[in-house]
This record gives sequence, C-alpha cells and structure tokens, in this order.
Amino acid sequence: MLTPRPLSGFPEFLPAQQLAFNRALALIRGTYEAHGFTPIETPSVERRDVLAAKGGDEAEIYALTRPNAGPAERETELALHFDLSVPLARYVAQYESRLVFPFQRSQVQKVWRGERPQAGRYREFYQADLDVVGRGSLSPLYDAVVPAVVCEALTRLNVGGFQIRVNNRRVLQGYFEGLGLAPEAVPGALRSLDRLERAGIDRVRQDLTALPGLNPAALKGFLDLVTANLPSDSVLAELEGRTVNPAFERGVAELRAVHSGLQDLGVPDDNVRLDLSIARGLEYYTGTVYETRLLDFPGLGSVCSGGRYENLVGHFHQGTFPGVGMSIGVSRLVPALLESGRLPVGPSTTAQVLVTVVEPGGQGESLRLGAELRAEGVSTEVYLEPYRLGPQLRYADRKGFRLAVMAGGAELQAGQVRVKDLQTGEEVLLGRAAWARTIAGRLRG
Amino acid sequence: MLTPRPLSGFPEFLPAQQLAFNRALALIRGTYEAHGFTPIETPSVERRDVLAAKGGDEAEIYALTRPNAGPAERETELALHFDLSVPLARYVAQYESRLVFPFQRSQVQKVWRGERPQAGRYREFYQADLDVVGRGSLSPLYDAVVPAVVCEALTRLNVGGFQIRVNNRRVLQGYFEGLGLAPEAVPGALRSLDRLERAGIDRVRQDLTALPGLNPAALKGFLDLVTANLPSDSVLAELEGRTVNPAFERGVAELRAVHSGLQDLGVPDDNVRLDLSIARGLEYYTGTVYETRLLDFPGLGSVCSGGRYENLVGHFHQGTFPGVGMSIGVSRLVPALLESGRLPVGPSTTAQVLVTVVEPGGQGESLRLGAELRAEGVSTEVYLEPYRLGPQLRYADRKGFRLAVMAGGAELQAGQVRVKDLQTGEEVLLGRAAWARTIAGRLRG
Repeated sequence: MLTPRPLSGFPEFLPAQQLAFNRALALIRGTYEAHGFTPIETPSVERRDVLAAKGGDEAEIYALTRPNAGPAERETELALHFDLSVPLARYVAQYESRLVFPFQRSQVQKVWRGERPQAGRYREFYQADLDVVGRGSLSPLYDAVVPAVVCEALTRLNVGGFQIRVNNRRVLQGYFEGLGLAPEAVPGALRSLDRLERAGIDRVRQDLTALPGLNPAALKGFLDLVTANLPSDSVLAELEGRTVNPAFERGVAELRAVHSGLQDLGVPDDNVRLDLSIARGLEYYTGTVYETRLLDFPGLGSVCSGGRYENLVGHFHQGTFPGVGMSIGVSRLVPALLESGRLPVGPSTTAQVLVTVVEPGGQGESLRLGAELRAEGVSTEVYLEPYRLGPQLRYADRKGFRLAVMAGGAELQAGQVRVKDLQTGEEVLLGRAAWARTIAGRLRG
Repeated sequence: MLTPRPLSGFPEFLPAQQLAFNRALALIRGTYEAHGFTPIETPSVERRDVLAAKGGDEAEIYALTRPNAGPAERETELALHFDLSVPLARYVAQYESRLVFPFQRSQVQKVWRGERPQAGRYREFYQADLDVVGRGSLSPLYDAVVPAVVCEALTRLNVGGFQIRVNNRRVLQGYFEGLGLAPEAVPGALRSLDRLERAGIDRVRQDLTALPGLNPAALKGFLDLVTANLPSDSVLAELEGRTVNPAFERGVAELRAVHSGLQDLGVPDDNVRLDLSIARGLEYYTGTVYETRLLDFPGLGSVCSGGRYENLVGHFHQGTFPGVGMSIGVSRLVPALLESGRLPVGPSTTAQVLVTVVEPGGQGESLRLGAELRAEGVSTEVYLEPYRLGPQLRYADRKGFRLAVMAGGAELQAGQVRVKDLQTGEEVLLGRAAWARTIAGRLRG
C-alpha cells in the first residue's frame, strides 16, 4: 500500500478551486485573443540542444530518460521546456515561411524548472505569454500594445491596484555611458540598479559610486530622478531635456512612443508608470522592459515581466526577428487571488441542476428529465445512487448546484415537476410541457 | 546555428490548425461539463512508484532527471504520467475525505509515452477522460451515462457515423466458464476473442477450439451469436433466454440496465451497439467495456474506449471505490477530422477586425479606433507597421480577418470611418458616433 502525498512544487487543486483557476485562465486567454494574440501550443518537450542554445539555468532543466527501455532507447535527447520563449524562437524559425508577420501569438502552458521548492516557487507552473514578433523590424508602438493587453487582463482578474513599471535599457545604457562608465561595466551597473527595491538607495549609490569613471555629481542627479517618484510625464520631460548620446536619445524616443501609445489605448495612468530603476537582469532584453507589482500583494514580486528583444531567433535562423513580450506568472498570481477572495471560489460542479430520484425505479424518468433540461442548454447531472431524498439533497448542497429537480409518481401523473432553489429553499411546481424552458430562462435571467 | 526540425511523435500545429484543434477541445470539455463532469487537473508528473503501482508498460515511462544539477539532485523520483487513470486513482485516494461521491470528474490533459513513433502514434498527446467514481458502490446506470456523454461529444464534433460498442466482461467470463473452460484459461479466451476484427472469425474459432474443456457445439452457438450482427435488443433477448451461471446472469442484467439507461438518455440506436466480441485486454476492467469506431475512419481504430472497474484505488487506499470511465484519444481523432474537412480550419487570427493605418502618423487614431471596437466586445487588432494600405490588406486577407477598418484624415474630419468586408469586398462609411456598435451588431447578426 502506497500512501499518496503531495509532491512539493507541483500544485494541484480540489474541484472548486480548480474551476476557479480555470475561469481565471479562460479570462486571460480571452483577453489575449480579443486583441488578436492567437494561441499556439508547442510540445512540452524540446531537444536539449535547443533549450541549451538560448541559455537559461541548465541546472534547472528536467531531461527525459526511459529507465526501463532497452539500452538504445534509454537515453533521449529530450527535456521539458523551462519557459515559453525558447519554444517560440524555435517555432518562428521552423515555420517562418508559413507565418504572417507581425506574428501576434499567445501561449498559455505549463513549464518545468527543477528549482528548490520554497513558498511561491513551483517546479511545474503555468505561464501566460504574449509576444509580437516582426520580420526585419517592429514598430515601437507594439511596446505599448503588449502592456495594454496585460493591463486589461489584470483588471478583469480583479487584482486591485497594480502598476506596470516601464523602462528602457537603452536609456540606462546611454546614461551610464554618458556618465563616463566603460561599456563593459554597464551590465554591472544595471544589476546594481535592479537591486534598488530590495537593497535600498544607499546600497545602490555605494555600489555605483565604486564603479570606475562615474562622475559623482551626475550620478546624484540621475539617482534623484530615479527615486523622485514623479509622474511618467514629468520623468519623460526631464529625460527629453538632456543631451547624452544617440543610444540614450533613441531610448527616450521609444519611451515617448510607448507612453503616447498607452494613452491612445486608453490605459489608465495609475496602471502604468515609467520607472528608471527597472533594468531586468536578462541580457536578452535590449529596449523597453516591464515589471508589474500588485499593490495589495507586495510579497508576490513581479507577477508579469518582459521586454523588447532585438532578435528572437538568433541561434536558429539567419534572419532578424525583433519582438516584444510579457508573461503572466499564473500559478503564482491566481492562488493568491483565490486565497484573498478577490477571485471567488464557487461550486465544485459544472452543472447547475441536479435531478434527483424520488422513488425506487424512478431512475429512467430522471434520466429523461435530465435530457430535457440539457436539450434547453441547462447543464444537468442526474443522481443515480439508490439513496433517499435527504442524502441526495445534501449531495446537491455540498457540490453547490443551484436547483434540484424532484419528480415522483404522483406529480408526474399530474403532469408536474417539482423544482427546489437550493439557495433560497423555495420550491415550485412546473407543468411538464414547458418546465425545461422555464428553468432555462430562470437560470439565464 | 541549430536547424529546428520537427520532433517525431510530438505534434504541433500552425496557428489556424491550432485554433481549430482548440475549438474541438473546448467542445469536448463543454460537453463533459454540461453533464456535471467537473474538470480536475493533476500535475504532469507523478512519483515513479505511484506510476509503477498501477501497472502500465514501464518501458514506455519517461522519467525525469536533472543532468546538470548537483549529484544530490540529479536523480529524481519523478516521471511523466502515461495516462489519466493512475493520477485519478492517486487523487481520489489522497483527497477522499474532501471529495463528494459519486465523484463525476473530467480530465483533459497531455500524457506521455515513449512509444516507437509510427503513423497515428504519439509520444505526447491529449486524452479527454471522464469517469464516475463511487464510494463503496456505484449504480450500473452510470455505465449508460458515460457513453451517452461521449455520444454527444462525438456528434458535436461532426465525426459522421459512429458506433460505441458495448459489452460486459462478466457475460464473457460466465459464458466461457459455463462452456467448461477453467477460470485460469478465461483471460486467454478473452484475448483470442478480442482479436476477432483483426484476425477474423476462422482464426478465433481455431484458437478457442484449441482451449481444453470447451464444448465445440456450445462454442459454435456462441460464436454465431457474436458474429450475427443482430440489433442490441435481439442480442439481449438471446442472452436473457440462457441460464449459465450467476456471473453471466449478473453481467446480462448489467447490460440490460445500460441498454435501458441509454434509451432513457435519448442516445440514438445507431450510435451504440451491443457487441459480444469486445473484451478489452486490460484486466483492470471487470464489467461493462466500451470501444468506439468511426464508420468513415476505419483506420483510426477505437477512438474512445473504457469500462467499469471494481476498485480504482486498490494500491493507495483501504476503501473500495468502483467506477466507470471512457477516454477520447483527442490527438488522434481531431487531426483526422481536420484533414477530412469534417472540422473546418478557419482564420489564423482570433480577432475579427483589423484596424489599418492609412496615413503616416495615424497610428494613435487607429489605436483609439481599436479600443472603441473592443469596448463593444469586438475582437480587434491594430496594424502598426509603417506600410502602405495594400500590404496591410494583404496581411488581413492572409490571416482571415472579417473586416478591415480604414480611417484617414479626410474621413475622420468628416466624422466617418470606412469599413471593408474582406469576404465580399464591400465598403461602407459609418458615422463616428455609433460606428463601433454598428459593427458589433453586424458581426453578431
């Protein structure tokens, strides 16, 4: 006898929570699709050399073996994908001639990482990605479209207050170089700056000051702007007033385009903020970068990050495919929303109506009543175990059906069906001729 | 440079096919849910001892390792699930005290098997399972509910003619024992019978005649009934006319209950047939068994099989949880329907409308127009690349948008928006005040 026990890092829900999770996933998918981000799905498995080509922490990769197969088949070249960006790159390179660009794709799938389990860190989890990929070039206005879609998804998920923080790595890069920092020291400066929220301004100032070539006075001006918490408009005006170098000015122009696109798209000012401290660790990103904080869930960290990249397919294709994307960490976000009550957990059944069996031998009639309801579009389960009405109604209560149908011989002979509202306890007798349509109308109304 | 190439056995679709596949999946899920089969999802990964406990071909199991992790973490106890029955058993045993029985669950997920790749055999594929699990006992009428739901799903999938073939292993077991066969020889007899369709009646007769103790005259009577292709009613009447032994008679009574339940549920006679040759290889099944053939796709084999089992959780729990379930092989079925045109492949975008950019600098206005449409519930993409109208309309054609919106300075100043129907080529000018609502109404209508 094996005692089943939870696997650390591999989340799983009871039915009512699963249904609520599915509603959240459907809402995200629906929002992405309403903007024309068309869903693709790639296998969970890629060749190991494909996963290795795009970097990632190889220690986290789960590779596949077949320990009980013959020697020739035991080792495989396969591993589970650890994100959805590498599969997207491989997909675009593989089908480039059959895709239409700009390619607006969404992808909501599980990914796997052999991380050390800790609170909020999973080994199997859902990501909800959206990306626009161009061939040769891609308008910076797409850098506004992507966060606008995320903004709509988060709003529909009822997350409360949130801020998508936007920055541009060219601005930082140009700024640091303009301050006198050697280009090879810039990544280190970006990493220091990225730690602002965790480490505090004093630590960041100390780290940056220690870098060779930085002009302390200019650095102070920059850090004052980073920490001033000004409205995006004011930060932009500040940046536009400076002449630094072409990289900086290109980055500022891109930020301006994103800012103006977000306004055209009707994204509320409260939900997007220009934040010069956002640097994102990944070298992958070259222009716009995003992080997203939920004001009511500060402990969650960034629930949706991403950015602009120069070329998606570098390792797989000669061409240049720039793109921009973000990814919602669904498996971390949605359970927090469920626990806090921001997303309601409802019944543990997908059926609205339970047809009971009132008398011995009444199952056939109950099956027919159930079929009549379903023919009117009402989701319906028929209870078929030989128990008395009491346990059947307790079953209906525990699962959260809205209505219970009871039809015994006397009522059926009188051409009637008894229907009980399980929330109010109210019972009505409906004439058999139109009863199913009546119930359908009532449940819709 | 790595050339990306398809991984044999790991199917993947282009966007238009993916959308059609998703519609088919949604239709199956929707049908299951309309009958109260509530979706659960288990991790893709189980402990290897859990997978081994329930049998299955261990050579096919993909186990997980972390080849680049430290020695202590390299080996894992984890493997990918190869079906959804073992995870269901583990789930029911683990959460038994928090589930409500009968537990009607659906589960539509990928599973992995290290099979040798061949036509129609995948290593990663979707299964769409539905099961009812009782605690202690479960009415045989659920053996009618499960195929009725499958029947509805296949009908909605537009598969054409199909037959769910139903049998009962107790009938076969009782019959063979009644013919004088030793109980330990019965599994071999069932395996012979199961080969009827592939091997032919002569071969099956020969194999069965070779078994010790079988009375050739009685065997002839049985095989005549198996191959007579009679309506289910006549087969049942024949069986009910025989006195063999208690196992046989219990099996016949169960078949009668299933037959009568299917009629109460309104399942068309053409779609379900009692077929005494269906034995199912798995010892797992104890009563009712099912296989499903599509008349227009004989090469596909059984696209949906299953049956009744005595106890789901034997290896994991002291209790007895009988159940009945079926599983649609979605990854095999749906591509066949797409290729044959039975399921239409439509556009490669989820948006109905493309808003173009007619003039340089017109992107902001186009983004606003797009937002107005989406606010009316119309899925809309805005084209933002700096191309002339011709390439934008070709993009719209290739992706299959229904409408294209064009708004240049002159029209906008006149308070108008131009909308082109991409199927008919017809263009209309709509007043700006109510244009989005007009389009929403037109697309719904």
